[in-house]
Amino acid sequence: MNVEGRWRRTIEPEGDHVIVLDQAKLPYSIEWMPLKNLADACRAIRDMHIRGAPLIGVTAAYGVALALREGIAMDDACRELAATRPTAINLRWALGQMQGIRDADAAFARAAELADADVATCEAIGTHGAALLTGFGRDSVNVLTHCNAGWLATVDWGTALAPIYKAHEAGVRVHVWVDETRPRNQGLLTAWELAQHGVPHTVIADNAGGHLMQEGKVDLCIVGTDRTTRNGDVCNKIGTYLKALAAHDNAIPFYAAVPSSSIDWTVGEPREIPIEERSGDEVRFVRGRELTTSPVANPAFDVTPRRYMTGLITERGIATPASLQKMFDK
Amino acid sequence: MNVEGRWRRTIEPEGDHVIVLDQAKLPYSIEWMPLKNLADACRAIRDMHIRGAPLIGVTAAYGVALALREGIAMDDACRELAATRPTAINLRWALGQMQGIRDADAAFARAAELADADVATCEAIGTHGAALLTGFGRDSVNVLTHCNAGWLATVDWGTALAPIYKAHEAGVRVHVWVDETRPRNQGLLTAWELAQHGVPHTVIADNAGGHLMQEGKVDLCIVGTDRTTRNGDVCNKIGTYLKALAAHDNAIPFYAAVPSSSIDWTVGEPREIPIEERSGDEVRFVRGRELTTSPVANPAFDVTPRRYMTGLITERGIATPASLQKMFDK
Repeated sequence: MNVEGRWRRTIEPEGDHVIVLDQAKLPYSIEWMPLKNLADACRAIRDMHIRGAPLIGVTAAYGVALALREGIAMDDACRELAATRPTAINLRWALGQMQGIRDADAAFARAAELADADVATCEAIGTHGAALLTGFGRDSVNVLTHCNAGWLATVDWGTALAPIYKAHEAGVRVHVWVDETRPRNQGLLTAWELAQHGVPHTVIADNAGGHLMQEGKVDLCIVGTDRTTRNGDVCNKIGTYLKALAAHDNAIPFYAAVPSSSIDWTVGEPREIPIEERSGDEVRFVRGRELTTSPVANPAFDVTPRRYMTGLITERGIATPASLQKMFDK
Repeated sequence: MNVEGRWRRTIEPEGDHVIVLDQAKLPYSIEWMPLKNLADACRAIRDMHIRGAPLIGVTAAYGVALALREGIAMDDACRELAATRPTAINLRWALGQMQGIRDADAAFARAAELADADVATCEAIGTHGAALLTGFGRDSVNVLTHCNAGWLATVDWGTALAPIYKAHEAGVRVHVWVDETRPRNQGLLTAWELAQHGVPHTVIADNAGGHLMQEGKVDLCIVGTDRTTRNGDVCNKIGTYLKALAAHDNAIPFYAAVPSSSIDWTVGEPREIPIEERSGDEVRFVRGRELTTSPVANPAFDVTPRRYMTGLITERGIATPASLQKMFDK
């Protein structure tokens, strides 16, 4: 990823601690936030200084390492970290990967391995998915995405945006429709990171995507996921489901980029996934301005049923919902 | 309608001019804006100091009256008014109702008649539509609405909200899910006017409605319209189409409140309706704060195909798309 012209990762060890790019400040200010202990890591996840299912996982792994160095027991650290956010399965997956580790040095090394593995996984997703963006025989292929599943949501490359970066690097002309993604406006993060790489894009209100599809202005959709069932139902940022419906109604392919760390093999049906209800203040306030004094509800995710998924772009290749388990030998 | 405990209309003659409730200031400040000439009327419509298809129509009628008193010819006045906003058919309908009028006094009288007719039409829509809100046999019937089609969008009562007010007055327990309606946040106007009348409601991000429907938390949807084809395709605020798709996917009834002044009998298909593209600044700025420096697109309306409309609530009763023309003897 390219931050102010320099290649960085979203999370990096620095001296005896870890630094993360503070996404609560982006795109208005570029600041690195130090994580010095378990409490810092929990706060960074819970208050969304970092976000995106894969990055939540890696941050949790480093959180375990920081905890062990503080002398906090593995079980206690995992319990605190697991409680920060309920929906993204990568959090629990990463904590599982840390089990059995006894000392802080080994934990830091394991977290670094998970970070490297995330980069490799995302790059593979990019390579597999880039093939979907070719063959449109027009000036530019138009991809719609929701929320941010770019390198800001991972250690590098991103999931949904990785195919776009790979295609862009290969000289394919790509234009991205970027859903604003209320209430937290993660679409503005997507716009910012696409701008850092020179990828043409246009921000739209979340309401606009269906109309653009009706008008023939969207060639395909790619989104990320916070948890996918073994049958290919895709839990992702609230509003994803609405775009999948519109894509289906207009015969537009709809893909999710799904690293296997986001697949919950224990879950088969949408209703089994817990949906995080976040503070109404996220809807009520925009950049410090209060919009309404009325009651507010703020569910953070929805689940797109597998029947609306054209394919799932994994690090092993592109699966259909029906072939997902076989692709991973489950 | 109830503004600060006093019954008012959104547009009223006052002395030698006309006053309108300034919706560009709501819900943060309650201010009445004087319209003293044609230019004032055009500006009020174009810059959305007033909005909502029926109210745009009545304001245009008063605009003609103000123009005639300035000595401006009918044709010139109509041309200027017609150019303010392209999508709402009520604007052209109201200008048609003013044809043949020779002097300002007659024009003011005709505009007042149209205002009274709008009130009667909306109240009839309320009476017909209220029947849809009964029989749910639960604590509260949950209605989802998009944008503002309440009394702020009309002279009084509203279109989509009229059935809600009628049911609420009749003692039916109603709760309204209010879509925020980015980019202009007209949902906050809906929340404000519902609050003025004590109707329980909850504001949600536009992304949330599909999930609420999946969860069984929405009993029916009612929206307004800016133009409806003779076949029952409903053009309304951008994002309406997405909610109609979700309602269809979850077997939830989806209604539009359609005064006959919003029906374009000359248009049979969605593609024939011009969709207004508004300034990207509406997406880019929220209450004066800049959200992004990226390019922005801002289509203001979409068209929900008739196959997703359960019914059209008109002043003559509830039609299906197939029975709409017969109901109006067309």
